[in-house]
Amino acid sequence: MDHSIPRGEFGLIDWIRSQHQTSPGKGTVVGIGDDCAVLEFTPGSKILVTTDMLMDGRHFRLADDGALAVGYKAMGVNLSDIAAMAGVPRAAVVSVALPKENPVETAQGLHAGFKMMADRFEVDLVGGDTNAWDGPLVVNVTLMGETTVRGAVGRSGAQPGDAILVTGPLGGSLFRGRHLRPEPRVREALALAEAAELHAMIDLSDGLSSDLGHILRESGNLGALLHAAQVPLHSDAIEQGQTDGISAIDHALHDGEDFELCVVCSADNALRLLSKRPGGTILHRIGEISAEPGLRIRAANGNISLVQPRGFDHLRVPE
Amino acid sequence: MDHSIPRGEFGLIDWIRSQHQTSPGKGTVVGIGDDCAVLEFTPGSKILVTTDMLMDGRHFRLADDGALAVGYKAMGVNLSDIAAMAGVPRAAVVSVALPKENPVETAQGLHAGFKMMADRFEVDLVGGDTNAWDGPLVVNVTLMGETTVRGAVGRSGAQPGDAILVTGPLGGSLFRGRHLRPEPRVREALALAEAAELHAMIDLSDGLSSDLGHILRESGNLGALLHAAQVPLHSDAIEQGQTDGISAIDHALHDGEDFELCVVCSADNALRLLSKRPGGTILHRIGEISAEPGLRIRAANGNISLVQPRGFDHLRVPE
Repeated sequence: MDHSIPRGEFGLIDWIRSQHQTSPGKGTVVGIGDDCAVLEFTPGSKILVTTDMLMDGRHFRLADDGALAVGYKAMGVNLSDIAAMAGVPRAAVVSVALPKENPVETAQGLHAGFKMMADRFEVDLVGGDTNAWDGPLVVNVTLMGETTVRGAVGRSGAQPGDAILVTGPLGGSLFRGRHLRPEPRVREALALAEAAELHAMIDLSDGLSSDLGHILRESGNLGALLHAAQVPLHSDAIEQGQTDGISAIDHALHDGEDFELCVVCSADNALRLLSKRPGGTILHRIGEISAEPGLRIRAANGNISLVQPRGFDHLRVPE
Repeated sequence: MDHSIPRGEFGLIDWIRSQHQTSPGKGTVVGIGDDCAVLEFTPGSKILVTTDMLMDGRHFRLADDGALAVGYKAMGVNLSDIAAMAGVPRAAVVSVALPKENPVETAQGLHAGFKMMADRFEVDLVGGDTNAWDGPLVVNVTLMGETTVRGAVGRSGAQPGDAILVTGPLGGSLFRGRHLRPEPRVREALALAEAAELHAMIDLSDGLSSDLGHILRESGNLGALLHAAQVPLHSDAIEQGQTDGISAIDHALHDGEDFELCVVCSADNALRLLSKRPGGTILHRIGEISAEPGLRIRAANGNISLVQPRGFDHLRVPE
């Protein structure tokens, strides 16, 4: 990374362009530097598109976290959405509203973070929009990918009796800043989708109770029964629970920003996936889909209670 | 448009989804409501992508302009970028950071504006990200389109001796709020590209001096000579000049946000386009490309002077 400070908007854009050279023949026909990027995806594939906006004070704290971590997270959360459809990520465009203090240094940090995450998944950064203003940092990433021959895995195919699996331990992602370092499960999703027919999949961004709720709703108002003893608890959830008095299982159910996958497939396929662990993917079977609506959880003592989704409400601004 | 006020984030997202129903068979396989949108473009076409972020106080004033105008403009400026490549716009994703005062009403106004502009160009709104925060309104639109069989028209193909044309009068777009009502030249661009080989094209967002400068630079550091008497002056530029003492031609050269096209083609093709006016497109021949670098202008008295680009610098924040 070149640490010299480019001058003015066009100096910065030249610098950004120099950081994101794209290799010809990999799908990017025209990258940064025209009115649009021009892309050529695999013939026969469908196009996947997702977008996420991250704002200072809501999804990160620039002063504490630094611009590189913000760029890394912003690219990562979009990769996680492509993973959730079992897609192959290909190209990103990024827009930034830079605070007027040190806009160029902030942009350089962001782009180092965008690139660090994008390079891990062979994603080209092909365009964007760079602005400064009298407000806090806002970053928007739009990521495009393509489907494999197996097509996209949506949210609406869950069936009663299906098994529910997750790809890793949950809860407490804010406690030690893990929410800034998402591990997009792109390769895991592709390996799972290749090994077995997946009925539904979603990435855990808002929290298991809320995100699994989307699958239940989109699959025709189904329900689910989770087994508390089988939900993998992240050490962050346990540690945070010891300081805030909220149980680790409640952290795991509601915290969000774990960016693990929640996978729904037939019980037979779940057994096969659990024994084969395609691509070395970690898998925990945490419950079953039910015809009866509502999300319920069975405690270790056998008691069953209703879980109220209380994942992140993006419209609720803390006072 | 349904004026009832949906409750909470998911109520709002349901409302947004109801406003943007997509018709099957037109390229949108999955719209709003999954981790990604799934699109299927015309086989053999390439994908065009552009993104623009608009911030309150920089590109609009929410209190004066209203949310509908902001949504209309945000979609329009992206359509103008697709036009600049002679592409066919297809699908958009939108992200918003809503101020905490009346976030739902603001979102509804924005989406009415997005839809009004998108519908004019048969664009599907297929996804997005809705947040509220303790800051001013920020809107990001990413628009995807596809190339025709003629491919994309870039910025780098201008040649010495080529003619420079624009599709309408320029200058003063801020004076009466015309910058909020872009007329994306999508159909005009397609008609021109079908009628003649275009060497380069750009939309006039930052200002003629700055935007034409991009073409000159990307085409191998060429120059251009403009004829002041041939540059079409918008009545806004003339009126604004009478109040601020800046000449109308300076407004036309530097103001930006006209969203007309600047087209470069061979002198022969320019004559053909000017006589045929494909698709009824308004065209003015304003100058020629030169091998000698630099942008110059010939005044009515024959004097030639150098034009310094001073279009909008997106990194300069007014104090």
